[in-house]
Amino acid sequence: MPSINAERLLSDLRYFARFGAYRAGVHRPTYSKEDMESRRWLSQQYEAIGLQAQIDGVGNVFGMPHLERRSLLIGSHAESQNYAGWLDGALGVIYGLEIARTFSEAADCAGLSIAPVAWADEEGHYISTLGSRSFIGEIDEAEIDRAANVDHGLPLRDALRAAGLAGVSRFQLVPERYVGYLEAHIEQGDSLQASGHRIGVVTSIVGTWQYSIAFHGAQNHAGTTRMAIRKDAGLAAATLVMAIAERFPRVADPRSVWTTGRIRLEPGAPSIIPGKAEVLFQFRDSEMPVLERLDATLRDLVQETAVKTGCGAEIERTEAGTPRTMDSAFQAAIENAAARQALGCHVRMPSAASHDAQVVARRLRAAMLFVPSVGGISHHWTENTDSSDLVAGCQVLADAAETILLGEYR
Amino acid sequence: MPSINAERLLSDLRYFARFGAYRAGVHRPTYSKEDMESRRWLSQQYEAIGLQAQIDGVGNVFGMPHLERRSLLIGSHAESQNYAGWLDGALGVIYGLEIARTFSEAADCAGLSIAPVAWADEEGHYISTLGSRSFIGEIDEAEIDRAANVDHGLPLRDALRAAGLAGVSRFQLVPERYVGYLEAHIEQGDSLQASGHRIGVVTSIVGTWQYSIAFHGAQNHAGTTRMAIRKDAGLAAATLVMAIAERFPRVADPRSVWTTGRIRLEPGAPSIIPGKAEVLFQFRDSEMPVLERLDATLRDLVQETAVKTGCGAEIERTEAGTPRTMDSAFQAAIENAAARQALGCHVRMPSAASHDAQVVARRLRAAMLFVPSVGGISHHWTENTDSSDLVAGCQVLADAAETILLGEYR
Repeated sequence: MPSINAERLLSDLRYFARFGAYRAGVHRPTYSKEDMESRRWLSQQYEAIGLQAQIDGVGNVFGMPHLERRSLLIGSHAESQNYAGWLDGALGVIYGLEIARTFSEAADCAGLSIAPVAWADEEGHYISTLGSRSFIGEIDEAEIDRAANVDHGLPLRDALRAAGLAGVSRFQLVPERYVGYLEAHIEQGDSLQASGHRIGVVTSIVGTWQYSIAFHGAQNHAGTTRMAIRKDAGLAAATLVMAIAERFPRVADPRSVWTTGRIRLEPGAPSIIPGKAEVLFQFRDSEMPVLERLDATLRDLVQETAVKTGCGAEIERTEAGTPRTMDSAFQAAIENAAARQALGCHVRMPSAASHDAQVVARRLRAAMLFVPSVGGISHHWTENTDSSDLVAGCQVLADAAETILLGEYR
Repeated sequence: MPSINAERLLSDLRYFARFGAYRAGVHRPTYSKEDMESRRWLSQQYEAIGLQAQIDGVGNVFGMPHLERRSLLIGSHAESQNYAGWLDGALGVIYGLEIARTFSEAADCAGLSIAPVAWADEEGHYISTLGSRSFIGEIDEAEIDRAANVDHGLPLRDALRAAGLAGVSRFQLVPERYVGYLEAHIEQGDSLQASGHRIGVVTSIVGTWQYSIAFHGAQNHAGTTRMAIRKDAGLAAATLVMAIAERFPRVADPRSVWTTGRIRLEPGAPSIIPGKAEVLFQFRDSEMPVLERLDATLRDLVQETAVKTGCGAEIERTEAGTPRTMDSAFQAAIENAAARQALGCHVRMPSAASHDAQVVARRLRAAMLFVPSVGGISHHWTENTDSSDLVAGCQVLADAAETILLGEYR
């Protein structure tokens, strides 16, 4: 059984958090200076263990073994949400590095090859899961041409050029080269911690459906325009948010979640009635019929709001992820590895968050492992995981990786 | 009777709209490059008609007559709202310039002196009516130290430094130097146009009370955090906006207006439950008891929302303007001038918008004249006024100015 180096793992995780350090977390948006520095550092680490390293045209970092045999892809995404935690994405990336390194050093792993990977923009600063979608061939140049940063509107093309990636080719999956894909991630919820489990074996990943909704009212002076004749786009946005809060619980499943992440009023000045409002909304569920029901309800509510407020309305679905079941043999390998590590406390669970594994699973066998999040906190700079859990998770994943590769070759 | 030069007036108005031109309107925020260029141009025009011009420490532009006698202050604000109309503020500023020029040329106006003025930041990019409040001595250095741009957060001190105003003294009102203050402005509503009147004689100006309201929830992952345990600051903001829409009509007067101009969710990402929400809210009324009733209701609703959503709440009142009655003799002078111009269609009316006249009226006799806004549109780049109304308004104001000064000196 390959034995990972716990000290080296924790040291690398800490080192990686220096790229874009923000309080106890990181601010490392995709293609920012800090993000690209972190990718170049990863590339060097891959080279250092004898892999052929490559940063591709959308910023994915690949460490490719020289062996003829098929390898096991292990990784996650390198960038962070804005002003968020140090482990979201980074954990799985550094696990991939550490496991590849361990396999390259361990005599009993000779002939078993790990291909570490760091995907770009899973967090959707430009396009959610851009890197893994590009890898499996689900992104075309036209989509890249259209995309812009969700915060500051910089076109993706300009961001790629600034990151030195213009003209660099995008690495495409050749399925025959890989046994499958493993991804480790922090749970981002509190269920492992609450139930006293240390390893989560992911059974399926929810589908996330995301929308950009716009209301068009009549921009006017906030003093001289009588209440009765107003068409207030901001009021329309608030009306929709409250209508969703009232109606969704009746059509959703108990595990469904929905979130209004952003409301933007134009022009956003104190003395002007907003002429336009933009609402960024998403919901998640693991069942396709539920997702479709929520979609229909949302469209109804947007129309009802438009009628009620006298505003024009547009709704665009910007993401519609399919719920994805993880490979059952891979799940068993992770579960058995957790049992062998004698932690005595692993559990099967669905993932309520989207991950690159969901994308890669469309073309390769794939599975995921979760480690506990302290207090269930995530997407915030206070996100954290106990060191002992960080180490245990990596050791279990390394063990599972060996089982999977041995199953193929011995 | 002094006769203004209609062609020159319209030409100057058009020229002034080149500073920060945006579509058919202007984008000329206070202390922007374009705003400071427009102020320097005004200063040159004041000099050209023999006035002593001065841009003071907050950007107010004064054209000071050399006469010993008291002069009549005429003007408005030079900056615009963001991406807004070409006449809001600019109209009164260019009227001041044209009337000063007309008086300097007209033989029968010898000895009657006009002091044109262009105030800074009436629109509140940093502090509402900053310039006129500074002039009457109601701004101290500490308030300037604290203020920052409402859009991008640049400290006011830094903006003043960048505009070349650091260390420049602020011009203070010496009441003995002035007979009073006149300000012309577009109506910004549709009542003049709807009733077929061409001149509005302002009787009083509403009080505007403005608030910054913040809700503090728990920022977390939008997928892994169950609906039942969320503390969603964005939902709190929407709840408040809807509670106001329901409760305010019951406690307000029929003429009261209220507006949520901005909602900002932090961090504003699609997959993160907002941990903080900021709401920019204001209301206006011409009666103090109504303003106080609305204030109390708002504070109740903020507390009720906090309890209902489990979020913490803060409310800060950032502006509390007192409704102000205009000088009755000045009102009569404007009314009589309108009658003499044989337009046959003027009307007395309150102003539902705040103006620098409201501030200056605390220390000097003051009055205002309105010209019609096409379609009642304002604070939008499509804002406009018929050329014939632009000319008529200036002529009426010039005529009223003569009456007021003659009343003092002949």
